[in-house]
Amino acid sequence: MRTSRFFLSTSKEAPAEAELVSHKLMLRAGLIKRLGSGLYTWMPLGLRILRKVEAVVREEMNRAGAIELLMPAVIPAELWQESGRWEVFGPQMLKIKDRHQRDFLFGPTHEEVITDLARKELKSYKQLPVNFYQVQTKFRDEIRPRFGVMRAREFLMKDAYSFHLTESSLDETYRTMHAAYSRIFERLGLKFRAVAADTGAIGGSGSHEFHVLADSGEDAIAFCPDSDYAANVEMAEGLAPNTARPAATETMRDVDTPKQTTCEDVAALLGIPLQKTVKLIAVMAADKLNVLLIRGDHNLNEVKAAKIDGLADFRFATDEEIRATFNCPPGFLGPVGLDRSTIRVIADRTVAAMADFVCGANKPKFHTAGVNWGRDLPEPDLVADIRNVVEGDPSPDGKGSLGLCRGIEVGHIFKLGTKYSEALGATVLDEQGKARTVIMGCYGIGVSRIVGAAIEQGNDERGIVFPQAIAPFELAIVPLGYGRNAQVREAADALYNQMVEAGVDVVLDDRDERPGVMFADMELIGVAHRLVVSERGLKEGQLEYQARTDAQASKIAQADAAAYVKERIEACRS
Amino acid sequence: MRTSRFFLSTSKEAPAEAELVSHKLMLRAGLIKRLGSGLYTWMPLGLRILRKVEAVVREEMNRAGAIELLMPAVIPAELWQESGRWEVFGPQMLKIKDRHQRDFLFGPTHEEVITDLARKELKSYKQLPVNFYQVQTKFRDEIRPRFGVMRAREFLMKDAYSFHLTESSLDETYRTMHAAYSRIFERLGLKFRAVAADTGAIGGSGSHEFHVLADSGEDAIAFCPDSDYAANVEMAEGLAPNTARPAATETMRDVDTPKQTTCEDVAALLGIPLQKTVKLIAVMAADKLNVLLIRGDHNLNEVKAAKIDGLADFRFATDEEIRATFNCPPGFLGPVGLDRSTIRVIADRTVAAMADFVCGANKPKFHTAGVNWGRDLPEPDLVADIRNVVEGDPSPDGKGSLGLCRGIEVGHIFKLGTKYSEALGATVLDEQGKARTVIMGCYGIGVSRIVGAAIEQGNDERGIVFPQAIAPFELAIVPLGYGRNAQVREAADALYNQMVEAGVDVVLDDRDERPGVMFADMELIGVAHRLVVSERGLKEGQLEYQARTDAQASKIAQADAAAYVKERIEACRS
Repeated sequence: MRTSRFFLSTSKEAPAEAELVSHKLMLRAGLIKRLGSGLYTWMPLGLRILRKVEAVVREEMNRAGAIELLMPAVIPAELWQESGRWEVFGPQMLKIKDRHQRDFLFGPTHEEVITDLARKELKSYKQLPVNFYQVQTKFRDEIRPRFGVMRAREFLMKDAYSFHLTESSLDETYRTMHAAYSRIFERLGLKFRAVAADTGAIGGSGSHEFHVLADSGEDAIAFCPDSDYAANVEMAEGLAPNTARPAATETMRDVDTPKQTTCEDVAALLGIPLQKTVKLIAVMAADKLNVLLIRGDHNLNEVKAAKIDGLADFRFATDEEIRATFNCPPGFLGPVGLDRSTIRVIADRTVAAMADFVCGANKPKFHTAGVNWGRDLPEPDLVADIRNVVEGDPSPDGKGSLGLCRGIEVGHIFKLGTKYSEALGATVLDEQGKARTVIMGCYGIGVSRIVGAAIEQGNDERGIVFPQAIAPFELAIVPLGYGRNAQVREAADALYNQMVEAGVDVVLDDRDERPGVMFADMELIGVAHRLVVSERGLKEGQLEYQARTDAQASKIAQADAAAYVKERIEACRS
Repeated sequence: MRTSRFFLSTSKEAPAEAELVSHKLMLRAGLIKRLGSGLYTWMPLGLRILRKVEAVVREEMNRAGAIELLMPAVIPAELWQESGRWEVFGPQMLKIKDRHQRDFLFGPTHEEVITDLARKELKSYKQLPVNFYQVQTKFRDEIRPRFGVMRAREFLMKDAYSFHLTESSLDETYRTMHAAYSRIFERLGLKFRAVAADTGAIGGSGSHEFHVLADSGEDAIAFCPDSDYAANVEMAEGLAPNTARPAATETMRDVDTPKQTTCEDVAALLGIPLQKTVKLIAVMAADKLNVLLIRGDHNLNEVKAAKIDGLADFRFATDEEIRATFNCPPGFLGPVGLDRSTIRVIADRTVAAMADFVCGANKPKFHTAGVNWGRDLPEPDLVADIRNVVEGDPSPDGKGSLGLCRGIEVGHIFKLGTKYSEALGATVLDEQGKARTVIMGCYGIGVSRIVGAAIEQGNDERGIVFPQAIAPFELAIVPLGYGRNAQVREAADALYNQMVEAGVDVVLDDRDERPGVMFADMELIGVAHRLVVSERGLKEGQLEYQARTDAQASKIAQADAAAYVKERIEACRS
């Protein structure tokens, strides 16, 4: 490809409304152009990248035995009424009326359509398992589309749906998809994590999200650097400390805390680590007061708390309820001296293992220090995991300690079970000739979203740093004086032809712009490697080479350049 | 590909509502499944074919210098209001309201979107010419969707739009697209014609349609077998006969035609060829009566007639108007003895060259025979082309005589001019720095429609006869007893691997069905070549080969089979 035959449209500035770096860079690099709110045209350069992502996704889906088909984007309402989603999916679903005033929708997802196909086409267990997928334009009517392709209304998605006779067959395909997704993101050159939506064990879980890691990601992820463990921070299990509760060394005493109503302030006043403090959260459930104890530096996880027997519908106690029970305002509450016949004390696992801790004294302006379980108050009524994990916590899989990072969800695999097959009546005959409702899995990848996520992960002050696998070009040849200098032109053309023949995805920047302009453009759009051909260099028999990730260019002998670059590119290929 | 890993879903019967043979066969072969009216899922087998068509289209568009991008399917109404099409496009356009009650449409075509892009991105004549294209799912809300993918509501289309500073630049790209389209249909292995929508000369015309030829086609086409000339029958020029008007040989005389009011009946009664008769059609325009004369076996072409000076808004004369002028009822009208000061006589070119003809006598129950121009009535006031061409007419390009055929429109290239660029204000600066409205061309191909059209062109009592280029597979290997007979299995597997390595798109039918079932399926779905591996054949060292177009199978030596089939397949490749 030559730049002159391509439609390059870069700019120095991004529109003010672009918030995310990927959105800004995609507009500046001319990968996309805005048509309307959440609607983008993929420009030739952007489409190259999108197609590279799509090709890897397709190859790995095929390799994993999935079969591609293509369903209509416009879906009759009846199917969604049958599944019950027509009313409950909400305004994200774009409803349509045709000329006969019949209801349709622009499919945001295709469970109903594929299940309808399955109930018509699948007759026997012999046809199972089967896994269908498509790569298709979807529409979700986001209330506030933003972040460019990361939350566009129209987007490209790969969605797959598998059908099974047994749970174990679903488990097997689920594992196959987990492996295929991992291979996809590896081949794309992205740092990613498969994040368990609940237990974290592959196959034992009902759902995994695949996240591209990036500081700007919307989701906080807890992961173990020494294993595959990863989970949403809200879902990751907080284990008890590895060490047992220490013995008491201090005596219990009240300390003056005239204005200190938070653990942070108390710790600062007393000159002790925040980890020595305990906060009390009073909650009401079934008209009974419960006390939740969390270490001062930890945060309550309400989802976990709600899973405790009797706390399913808990709410935070009001100031009045607190004063009525503790005879003390919030900010000075503690677990010592409570009437345990009416108040249940639930301690987080960490708190249950603490000794000599500091908590509220249940007296205004006082806290209590040197508190110890058993000695100063009875053991907790219940010890449970009720907090969010933090960096350094032991990994639930026992293989190290947790780190925290942020991620962008780009894939999701999910055990659907029989939700749709039951609603639509999709059955097959089993070996005994008995009709059995098929069991389903579904597997999505946000193809266009991956492009944005890759840029969130890879960028610097010069622009986009794509992994080579999805860079718009593997190599840019930038001749200085292509139009003026026959020697430069011949050398650049020869090199270009050599690279094309070697199967390298190469662009020749034949625009004859100023060097600075050409360098900046090739860097902005994220071309992975660059060779500069100049008159001065040729005189010395040298070209200038720079990988997009290199800080500086280096000189290489003209005679070795082709082989050198080809080797570097091949080494990066997956 | 092995059939067992593929999702083959054939049936013996097609639903009664399928009228066209392509619709029936696509359903029977399981290429598509109906989701709703005009909405089809492309099944794995059908999608293979669709993708092959798409790939050829894309390759040839790229080769022709067009640049691919991808525009949103959902388009804000404002753009179509700006062009004026929001109100006039009609109910085929699917209108949509988003959650904020803003108007959108599901784009049936993308002139507005690309012109909006052009006005934002094109600044200088130096960026021209440029030709953008996309391959995209479109929606047209057909009032009565039918014929399967031939007139579906949702369909896959390739649409291209070019931008130019000058008409001659548009002409050049138009010619390039004409050539690219021709190459596309040639490579797809289809019999086709580029049909002029008006004059028929490439470049001199504003529009060409590309038709796949098939007896069931909706459009009648006149073409010259000895040249590239082709036009819609309604558009093809009817030339004057090659021979001059013969001299008069008969005397003019009235003949009794008591009940004969049509040329057919008169010719039958008199025992003369229909070609000796002339019919008179009385039309009114600007309150003046005009007489149109057409040979008895020809048909009036109203579009051509309306192009004659003074006839732009003509209508057929009423019985009352006819009686008032001719003093004779319709069925016996003729051009002899008319008051030429009030009645204009317009003769078709053919009629003007006739001698000794028969026409109405302007007396009830009489016709006049032996009529001759000049002698019996004045020469026509105007001689013009006002009829539809018929088979055997001289070709307008002077290169032979016309044939007639029927076609299915699958492509359309069109000189748009400045309709959209003016409406949306898309200008560039020319060499003098002056803003100039860009000139546009547009070029469409119905990608999914091609699959249906190919089947209309190629089918027999056994099913689909695809050209090899778009057959779902180039070769089927059908082993008899694959599951039971180790020798058959080994031979089939070895052959399969050999073919895969040779780059042949091959399917191995490993279903172990009865031979009849497997043969019928492979024929129904249109696999181009077939090799049968059987125990008996192997004993004799032979396989059975049959091309889909062969009437019978033939035996070939097992040792030569791979090379033989490979050679046949390569010979068919484009």
